Amino acid sequence: MTRAAGGCLLVIGGHEDREHGKDVLDRFLELSGGAGAPIVVVTAASTAPDKVWAIYKRAFAALGATDVRPLHLGGPGEAGYAAMAQAIHRAGGVFLSGGDQKRLLRCLAGTPVEAALHAALERGACIAGTSAGASALAARMLAGGYTSLQPLKGAVTLAAGLGFVGGVVIDQHFAQRHRLARLMSVIAEHPHCYGVGIDEDTALLAGPGPVIEVLGAGSVTILDGRAMESNVEEIRRHARPRLLDVRVHLLPSRSRFALEESADGKIQAAPESLRHFIQTMTTKSET
Amino acid sequence: MTRAAGGCLLVIGGHEDREHGKDVLDRFLELSGGAGAPIVVVTAASTAPDKVWAIYKRAFAALGATDVRPLHLGGPGEAGYAAMAQAIHRAGGVFLSGGDQKRLLRCLAGTPVEAALHAALERGACIAGTSAGASALAARMLAGGYTSLQPLKGAVTLAAGLGFVGGVVIDQHFAQRHRLARLMSVIAEHPHCYGVGIDEDTALLAGPGPVIEVLGAGSVTILDGRAMESNVEEIRRHARPRLLDVRVHLLPSRSRFALEESADGKIQAAPESLRHFIQTMTTKSET
Repeated sequence: MTRAAGGCLLVIGGHEDREHGKDVLDRFLELSGGAGAPIVVVTAASTAPDKVWAIYKRAFAALGATDVRPLHLGGPGEAGYAAMAQAIHRAGGVFLSGGDQKRLLRCLAGTPVEAALHAALERGACIAGTSAGASALAARMLAGGYTSLQPLKGAVTLAAGLGFVGGVVIDQHFAQRHRLARLMSVIAEHPHCYGVGIDEDTALLAGPGPVIEVLGAGSVTILDGRAMESNVEEIRRHARPRLLDVRVHLLPSRSRFALEESADGKIQAAPESLRHFIQTMTTKSET
Repeated sequence: MTRAAGGCLLVIGGHEDREHGKDVLDRFLELSGGAGAPIVVVTAASTAPDKVWAIYKRAFAALGATDVRPLHLGGPGEAGYAAMAQAIHRAGGVFLSGGDQKRLLRCLAGTPVEAALHAALERGACIAGTSAGASALAARMLAGGYTSLQPLKGAVTLAAGLGFVGGVVIDQHFAQRHRLARLMSVIAEHPHCYGVGIDEDTALLAGPGPVIEVLGAGSVTILDGRAMESNVEEIRRHARPRLLDVRVHLLPSRSRFALEESADGKIQAAPESLRHFIQTMTTKSET
């Protein structure tokens, strides 16, 4: 089921520009309802929430935003979650900062704030996450492991994320940190998940409606292992899998695809190779 | 047309072990006819041929080889090419060292030595190349350009190689030097060529017969752009292309595939996704 009209996810690969062009943040503000819209910045992924808030306070103020507030979460059990959820309920946009996605999940999972975020997306808000905040948007997220030059069985472990989108695993700082092998390790063991690698200062916008768009400075790399043949079940842990027929899509900034061509012709109808991915990114799913 | 029985190409990704296990060099010696077989080491790619020869002289001696000689080529016009060609004509194996593939081509192209190498492959010798020597084996080779985090139009230029195999562009030190984006740049503009990325201390063996095998420490990455949709024709030079449906195969060491399963069952019949690649790697072609 496609999300309610208006709701969208803005999945940012980290290091989005906060000083100059601010393409990504500017778009977030627009998607959230414009300069006067209520914006909440969730700093829970970071161990330095005040520092993070100072950066975004300044960046959004420079873009003309007038109603931006931080939401600092110290961890489960902290008082005031219900009040914080209220801030989310009235927000046009919520921005999840970088840091550590496991920390973010420890703070949010099962709280009224998490429920409020899901409700916000359903009623049409823009939910954005950068770096760790981006990874945490999916139902499953990278939670541990090691980096290698080659995909390896068992190199990465996944954990439950916030679940705004299912069927994908998101990685960030993608080209800059040479993370293709790591993302290949993910799909080697999880071939029914797309691997989505997002470069720095780059975002994948999913929605409103069945539309995806890439914005910012870099590209989004999509790994599709659905047709893959592999021997991953037969090999020992830490061995290199044989992977045949992994499909790779590289979408540079300004790529836009929809399931149907838009009436003004500005958005292309997606080719067959991307249609299922668009549905996945713009459909509510728990898995 | 498949090459004559016995002839094979050993395409090595550079830094093959010359001290310890020597899997790759050992296999080269075996494919060349064993310890007593006449072996020629062509050092022309290097600006330090004596140093290169000293390394391989020692490595092959340690493997028991008894008839290994260097072939130093100073450049076109040098006397003695015909005599050098004679050495190739009697060789069971020829090893092209690393260095600079453009230098190698300047020394070999159009000489009797080049013709002798082709004749040697046809009559059943093993032609091996490592690093620059590997790139030069194909009809088209990387000849210039720059490395970027992202595939870019015009990032790389190709030049004519030795042409033992067509329809592929070979890159080496592949995982170690993060060269995927570079190889994607190649297939973005040359979608009818496979991109073949070979890790260090790793080799792709093509032949004898319609069989491929990966040996050594790493993997071989194959990029297949034949089904790719791209906008590369529409974008300006140095811009990032949109690439959809690039097919990637990752073959770790000990992967072996043939067009038909071997009688002893030790070599698997290749899945559909690899069959055309196997034909390409084991068929004579000028393009």
